[in-house]
Amino acid sequence: MRKGEQTRQEIIRKAAPIFNQRGYDGAALSDLMRATGLEKGGIYRHFSSKEALAAEAFDYAWRETLDARIHDLGTISNTVDRLKQLVANFVERRGTIPGGCPLLNTAIDTDDGNSVLRERARKALRGWRSYVVSIVSAGIEAREIQPRVDPKKLATLIISSLEGAIMLYRLERSAEALRAVQAHLDNYLETDVRVPSK
Amino acid sequence: MRKGEQTRQEIIRKAAPIFNQRGYDGAALSDLMRATGLEKGGIYRHFSSKEALAAEAFDYAWRETLDARIHDLGTISNTVDRLKQLVANFVERRGTIPGGCPLLNTAIDTDDGNSVLRERARKALRGWRSYVVSIVSAGIEAREIQPRVDPKKLATLIISSLEGAIMLYRLERSAEALRAVQAHLDNYLETDVRVPSK
Repeated sequence: MRKGEQTRQEIIRKAAPIFNQRGYDGAALSDLMRATGLEKGGIYRHFSSKEALAAEAFDYAWRETLDARIHDLGTISNTVDRLKQLVANFVERRGTIPGGCPLLNTAIDTDDGNSVLRERARKALRGWRSYVVSIVSAGIEAREIQPRVDPKKLATLIISSLEGAIMLYRLERSAEALRAVQAHLDNYLETDVRVPSK
Repeated sequence: MRKGEQTRQEIIRKAAPIFNQRGYDGAALSDLMRATGLEKGGIYRHFSSKEALAAEAFDYAWRETLDARIHDLGTISNTVDRLKQLVANFVERRGTIPGGCPLLNTAIDTDDGNSVLRERARKALRGWRSYVVSIVSAGIEAREIQPRVDPKKLATLIISSLEGAIMLYRLERSAEALRAVQAHLDNYLETDVRVPSK
């Protein structure tokens, strides 16, 4: 990797927690300068604007978060068990970027403006939902999941309830809501989604 | 109401959509001045700080939102039907303050700082959850709701999944996630929560 590209990646990595914790408007240039140890010119040599840097920082933070959520799922062959582990990962591994879920943060932060960042968040949501949909569809195909289950609706339910629980978790500093949602989803996956073994 | 108090309420009402749409850091003094038609001094004669104004604006926005969500619930005597109407209100009446759910917005906006606003959001969540808990507890008492249902867990599930769906709704400008969560909760309330009639 060229030196310039290394510096660019380093700026993204150090800016990501700041944008994730403080939001787009709250992330001041002085914070970014302190975190990166660079002057304004040193940062903006690598990015055309604050928006461009925030977009790269979001993509980085989301990749890290998604990696934690889908960690090791490939090793679980049964698709219902894989969904349950996805839920468990969400509850137990909250990623390496401080400030909560980058998707939730950026969606809320940009829903009334900032179209570049908002488009990144939309893309992240689409990608994540597609990933969950693909597990459900594979499960129906393999006769592990009831054929009447709608893959997109189930994926939407899982994502909505977990993301909402993150809000309660962040506000109350207690994992109670995450645990309640996990227990509900686990039970639902066992009783309404899984094809009972004969 | 005294003139000063009238002006104060007017400022709160006009500031609420700005804070709800742009967040605390994003709400600029110039926006607040434009919305209220007042100079800086005219605004801050009535509030000790931006934080104090934001706190009052949040309380106002939340009151409006909660009013829409619990609209007419008192007229429904069966508690399971009341919970289903609460969910329907959430999906169909999104309040009069533009910018999405003030609780979700403020929780996400303040979870890494701003303790005054964060405390208001915590209080709003506690109040809303207590309201749902009281419906569930009354339903258990009246033998309309299964006694094995945990009121706080059910309230947490309803709130988490609906608030998460609001995030998807705001990001995708589609009510699909809200509808998917509503269908799931309705079915769950009918099959696992309601005491079957004899």
